[in-house]
This record gives sequence, structure tokens and C-alpha cells, in this order.
Amino acid sequence: MRALAWDDGDVVILDQTLLPHREEHRALRTTEEIVEAIRAMRVRGAPALGIVGAMGVAQAALRASGDPLGAGEAAGAALKAARPTAVNLGWAIERALARAPAVPAAEVIPALVAEALAIQAEDEAACAAMAKHALEFFPREGTVLTHCNTGALVTGGIGTALGAITHAVEQGYAIEVLATETRPLLQGARLTAWELGRAGVPHAIVVDAAAAGLIARGGVRLVIVGADRVAVNGDVANKVGTYALALAAADAGIPFVVVAPRSTVDAATPDGGSIEIEERAGTEVTHLAGTAVAAPRSVARNPAFDVTPARLVTAIVTEAGVHRPPFETLTT
Amino acid sequence: MRALAWDDGDVVILDQTLLPHREEHRALRTTEEIVEAIRAMRVRGAPALGIVGAMGVAQAALRASGDPLGAGEAAGAALKAARPTAVNLGWAIERALARAPAVPAAEVIPALVAEALAIQAEDEAACAAMAKHALEFFPREGTVLTHCNTGALVTGGIGTALGAITHAVEQGYAIEVLATETRPLLQGARLTAWELGRAGVPHAIVVDAAAAGLIARGGVRLVIVGADRVAVNGDVANKVGTYALALAAADAGIPFVVVAPRSTVDAATPDGGSIEIEERAGTEVTHLAGTAVAAPRSVARNPAFDVTPARLVTAIVTEAGVHRPPFETLTT
Repeated sequence: MRALAWDDGDVVILDQTLLPHREEHRALRTTEEIVEAIRAMRVRGAPALGIVGAMGVAQAALRASGDPLGAGEAAGAALKAARPTAVNLGWAIERALARAPAVPAAEVIPALVAEALAIQAEDEAACAAMAKHALEFFPREGTVLTHCNTGALVTGGIGTALGAITHAVEQGYAIEVLATETRPLLQGARLTAWELGRAGVPHAIVVDAAAAGLIARGGVRLVIVGADRVAVNGDVANKVGTYALALAAADAGIPFVVVAPRSTVDAATPDGGSIEIEERAGTEVTHLAGTAVAAPRSVARNPAFDVTPARLVTAIVTEAGVHRPPFETLTT
Repeated sequence: MRALAWDDGDVVILDQTLLPHREEHRALRTTEEIVEAIRAMRVRGAPALGIVGAMGVAQAALRASGDPLGAGEAAGAALKAARPTAVNLGWAIERALARAPAVPAAEVIPALVAEALAIQAEDEAACAAMAKHALEFFPREGTVLTHCNTGALVTGGIGTALGAITHAVEQGYAIEVLATETRPLLQGARLTAWELGRAGVPHAIVVDAAAAGLIARGGVRLVIVGADRVAVNGDVANKVGTYALALAAADAGIPFVVVAPRSTVDAATPDGGSIEIEERAGTEVTHLAGTAVAAPRSVARNPAFDVTPARLVTAIVTEAGVHRPPFETLTT
């Protein structure tokens, strides 16, 4: 079963908090259950959150005892509040609800369901298109390095950067992957390694700090990552650690490629300097899986993202194609 | 009590495997106990291992029932085998044993004890000199970033890079420290944070991947690290992750300073390309404190060091002074 599915009114997710040790699907039957799953990060990743949000609106309308649109709107408000900073969540909920007033009352429920499934299908198509466009950056054989988790777990399709990798392997490219573990939450070690293992792609995990040295020693042919937000000038906000990988790629003269859907390009963000960097709880750093790993009473700073300046970016691949410096085609 | 002391024939160490949660000294009374402590990393760090090795030779001679020099030589061979790649361990043992034949038989034991204490005292003096020389690179106030653990735990004195930091604070500089956690073994989060806490120096832990972004955002005035080996041309082998910090410092235009005793400069190593990088067990990456953190059946690559090219190094500070590019004074 897919990581994310609509099953006759249930929103079915693969619980990411249990991965990689348990693969357990969970059928979310109420708005409250979906809110809890988002808050607890059972489902995470911008495209996936958008799809779940739209499905949640459709579910509330479907199961309302009356006034399906009102129920959908109430659910949408509750779902958006579950992770207020997740841009895609709000975007998808608004998009779904905007469809409803345009159809006769009897068709509100099917319209909401159709819109949620359309968002998922469009994301799936975007992933496939990005993977196809990104293929030109892959070596026919050799090692590529990726960061964090950007695969099927967080999109409606095969993923962004990780989707491009698995696509290249399917096309017969002899690729090995170095997956950075991605502290503090270890999405690379837990999720990317799990996805690559299931896909049969040879891979090894490295600590984040080891990536630059391995790149410098000539063992890596391509660094390929996703993005959380892309500014109009091509600056890229992504999981913390991305910027150092871009520096190392530039120093070694290998391509640094970003794969992200067009919805990630934010026309309201002129450059990286205007992106506010979310700081998360320091306990994510001082603790691991509930166990204290740092000196007692230590405080930690925990920026979730960093900004890679456009000058270090070889290309940004969207479903529309390959965008190169100075990235004038990003917003056209 | 100090992290490392000679107590009437006992070699007393602060057990680093119990830090930061327990501060427990352990008196090592036999060669076997010292070998076990080295193998188990109860004591670690190049200068500290050298001191312990020389003390172990003296202890064996002191407690021998006859032939103190023979007992010291046998102990030296056993101690060197405990960590055969630790250059300082072998160097200090050889230095101590080389003293013995030059003195009358009755003076062998005091000569060995004196030599071990001399090695410790010289390292203490070197630390103090390095800290003094390094002061010029510190801002009068602001944040400095360091990597791994280079303090009193691993030297005979106040440490190398971390000693320079605590010295600057004692001189009235208003310094805050960002300490990288230093995966996989978390020497930064466990040991550096513990030392800084005891010294009353304001600090925060960050994941290794967060350092570059924080440097780019202008919050860091100096990156200061130790070294495991310095090549004749100024290339620096140090804990994995150092190279990315040097790239980030160069990109931000802040100084990147290496603090290491002259014994770390290896005249037999012309440049970084000739330094073999030790690969340690992948389980250090896939597990943390005995708990599996990665996807099952994952393999990991685990290089322990990386090489920072001399072109990224602002200065190398030894007890002899400040060495700057092209580092011609390093070996004179």
C-alpha cells in the first residue's frame, strides 16, 4: 500500500514515527485523528501534508450529518492549525474549499473528494516529470549524495530528489547513494535508507559531518537535494546541512542540483535573506529517541533549515524543466 | 582532581566513557588495567594517551619484583598494542624508555617517573603557550565555534582549541561558544559542553550540519579547532566535519584557526593527500548508545577524519607561535 491513500473516506497513512522499525498503516477516520497524526509527525513533508489536508476536508464533508461544506470548512481550519507554518497544508485546504461553492450543493462532497485526489495525482505527475528532467545530471555510474528524506513518504509520487535517484536507477544507471543521516531527527538514516533498501538501491549512511570530506576525496559525482522554499533569485531554503553540501560540491567541482515542485518556488520571497529560519526545540539535539545524549543542563540551538545561495546551485529542477543560473525562468 | 594524575604509582584517570552523566575517577593499578582503559576509551586523545603510556611504563618498573627496566619495556610493548595507531602513545613510551639506560640501575625507576611527569608538564606548558598565542584571533566579544573535544580531558593542561577558548574568557573576552555535537561519538555534546559548563563559559550545542548556516548568517566570529595531524604544507587532518567548517568560514570571511602542539606536525607527511583516513565501524553511525537508530540492515561509512587544505587555514597555532600561509615556519 502507498504511504498515503484515500480509502472510502478514510485517510490512510504509513506512520512515519514507527519507521524504520515498524511498517504500520493507520486509517485516520476523523479530523481529530488527522490533526493528531500531523502534530505527532506520523505524516510529514510539504506535499504529503497538503494532500492529507485536502483529504481531511473531503472526509469531514462526507461524514457530516448535514451542511457538508460547513463541516469541510471547520475541518480545514482545525487542520491548518495543526502545523500553522506548513505552507502546503494551508494551500491545499484553500484550493479544495475554493472548488466547493462553484458546484451545486449535492455535488460538494464529490467535488471535495475529487479535488483532494487531483492534488495527489498532480503531485505524482510532478514527481515523475522532475525525475525525468533531473536525469541529465546523473553519472551513468558512480556515487550520488543526498540529504534528508525526499521520497515517496513525503509526496504523492516517487518523491523529489530521491525520486530522481530511484528513477535513474530504473533507467539502468549504476548508482550508489550516500545518504546523510540528517540530525537531529535522522530522516536520512531512518527514512531514506529504508526507502532505498526497499527499492534495492545500493546505499550507505554517513554522518552529516562526513559528507564534505567524502566529496573532496573524489568519491561523489553529484549532490542532489530537495527544497522547502525556493526564492525568486534561486536561493534555496532546505533542511539544515544543505548549505555545507553545496559548498563542498562547489569546492570539488561537481554539480549541486535541487529538485522541487514549482509550488515550492515562492514568488513572495525575493531572496534567501528574507526567509525566516525556524528554530525548533533544543531537546531534539540534546536528546535522541528520548535519551539524553548531551551534558546535563546543556542548551542547544536547533535551526531546522539553512539557505544555500544561488551562486552555489548548478540547477533547480521542477516539473516544468531545468532552471539554471541566473534562474530567470523559475517564476515564468 | 585533574583528568589525569600520577598518585604514588597509581595512574588516575577521569573515566570519559561515564561522562557527562557521571564524574568518576578510576585508579589504574596494573598494566592490564591501563590497557583496558585505553581500549575502552576511558582515556582518549593523543596527548593524554602519551602521558598515560609513559606513566604506565613507570608504574610497571616501580612495582616490578625485580628488573625494573625489563618490566617497563614489557609494559610499554603491551600499552602500545592497546591502540597501535595512536602515534603519541608510542612516542611517549619510547621517549620514557630511552631515558632509562642512561642512568644507573638504582635510578631507573625515578628516571621513568620523572620522564612521565615531564611529558605531562611539557604538554601543560605547551597548552598554556598555545592559548596565549591564539588570543589574537579572538573577538573581544562574540561567538566562536569549535568542533569535537580538545580540552583538559585530552591533554596534560587546559587543552588546545578549547584551552584557547577558556583562556580568552579568563582574559576577560566576552565569548559565547557554539559547540558542534560531533557525531558519531558526540564528543562535543558530551565532553566539550561538560567542560564549558564547568568553566562557566556560555555555550550552546548544535548539530554538526547546523554550523555552516549559522556561520553564514553572521553569528560566528571565529572557528577554532584542534588537529590530529598537520602536514608540512599546512594541510590539517582533524575530526570528520572540520573541512566543512573551514569551507563555511572561508565563505563568510571569518578566521579558521587550528591549535595543535608541534608534535602534531608530521615531518613525514608532505601534504594532506598522503594522509590515510581511518574508517571506523559503521555501527558507530547506525547505533547510538547501543540503540539502533537507522533502517535495519543499513550499512554506514564512517571516516573518522577529514583533511582541510591549507588554503582554507588562516593560521596554525603551536607552542612556538602563530604560523601563517604558506606555513614555511611549521617545521623550522
